[in-house]
Amino acid sequence: MAGTNRKATPVLGGPAVILVRPQMGQNIGAAARAMLNFGLTELRIVAPRDGWPNPAALAMASGADRIIEEAKLYDSLEAALADRNFAVATSARERELEKRVMAPGAAAGVLRTRYEAGEACALIFGPEAAGLTSDEAALADLLVTIPTNPAFASLNLGQAVLILGYCWFNARPTARAILRDTQPPADKAQLFGLFEHLERELDRMGFLHPPEKKPAMIRNLRSLLTRAGFTEQDIRTLRGVIAALMGAKLKR
Amino acid sequence: MAGTNRKATPVLGGPAVILVRPQMGQNIGAAARAMLNFGLTELRIVAPRDGWPNPAALAMASGADRIIEEAKLYDSLEAALADRNFAVATSARERELEKRVMAPGAAAGVLRTRYEAGEACALIFGPEAAGLTSDEAALADLLVTIPTNPAFASLNLGQAVLILGYCWFNARPTARAILRDTQPPADKAQLFGLFEHLERELDRMGFLHPPEKKPAMIRNLRSLLTRAGFTEQDIRTLRGVIAALMGAKLKR
Repeated sequence: MAGTNRKATPVLGGPAVILVRPQMGQNIGAAARAMLNFGLTELRIVAPRDGWPNPAALAMASGADRIIEEAKLYDSLEAALADRNFAVATSARERELEKRVMAPGAAAGVLRTRYEAGEACALIFGPEAAGLTSDEAALADLLVTIPTNPAFASLNLGQAVLILGYCWFNARPTARAILRDTQPPADKAQLFGLFEHLERELDRMGFLHPPEKKPAMIRNLRSLLTRAGFTEQDIRTLRGVIAALMGAKLKR
Repeated sequence: MAGTNRKATPVLGGPAVILVRPQMGQNIGAAARAMLNFGLTELRIVAPRDGWPNPAALAMASGADRIIEEAKLYDSLEAALADRNFAVATSARERELEKRVMAPGAAAGVLRTRYEAGEACALIFGPEAAGLTSDEAALADLLVTIPTNPAFASLNLGQAVLILGYCWFNARPTARAILRDTQPPADKAQLFGLFEHLERELDRMGFLHPPEKKPAMIRNLRSLLTRAGFTEQDIRTLRGVIAALMGAKLKR
């Protein structure tokens, strides 16, 4: 088609694209095509509504079949993120989360910097209508919003992946991140281990009360701990701190 | 959908989007939706393969019906461009034309600058498979190419409009163009009048020979004259020059 260039430098691989609870198979196929247009080849799918494999996804992917065939299936976003160090999630809504929101070009620059520094990255898209839950968005390190005409704002899943893919393909590492600490953040499985450890102990100490406020308290804690960008060593230290504090409490 | 923002500032109107010889109605509809997502509301269609109006275009445009309903139909790209001052065309192929080619973000910055300076602008897309002819591309002031994965380069018409629309919506005027001469370029009808005048006289003088080289000679002349960005006054002056030269020749 008019407007593409076969001479551009290929960048294959890239961040894993995670589709959370996608609904229509054809949207998954369109997302796969958009991924391949911009050199993104690793697709992860969390709890697709219509099961997996999905013939409609394969039909729509024409030419990007391998991305669909090699897609990995997960039960939860936590599971899909476990081996990642850094995750960006698309978000249309204003959220009460204390989390940085960037425009696509800038977010892609951060993602590119992290990726080229060797971190395992992910780009997360919510389901077609509702988007990610706040608990899911809290697991991302950075949110990205695509500015659109407010009178006709809605993009479908394939379009959202296309725009983020375009931005990824054309991004350059940002200067700021090139100067950052060379110690990479822990992978998400280690971070989630810290969440569980801390929440279990806080629950035991009666901190997560009253019960109706518990979900929001946990979400805020997880968002805060994600934002910190802890290294593996940080997490070992913090778990030691929690254990020590609990030991002190239990001895009292 | 995840990734859009209803609070962004609206920019309605924008450059006219010109689809040249589009094939499938559903691609025209998808282009209309992508236009409206990014505040582009004026659609011009040149010689659509399946005639006009096209029910498939309206069906696919759901929500952007007005753009389809108010689309204007033209017989040629020249006619669609007549009232424009500045035109950008998408181009996938390398062309032998002596014409600047920019990436979408940079081209959108130039377009935004021209538009905000009050010039009548256009964004031209070729037909799905073949793209614009070289004669058509020669009429644009600037070419734009979307960098994609060379192993899977092809974008459809709706995707190409979406990416250029996104870039348009997020573009800021470029500093360089803000400093340009305040006299705007003539509209394309005036420029095309100069083409015809000059070509007619050159033909009469036997300059456009041999016949098999005539199309390429005309294309190169048109590309050169387009690149110059002549004002209305420039074109009046040049037509006077041509007339004067012809008078001299005839008197000899």
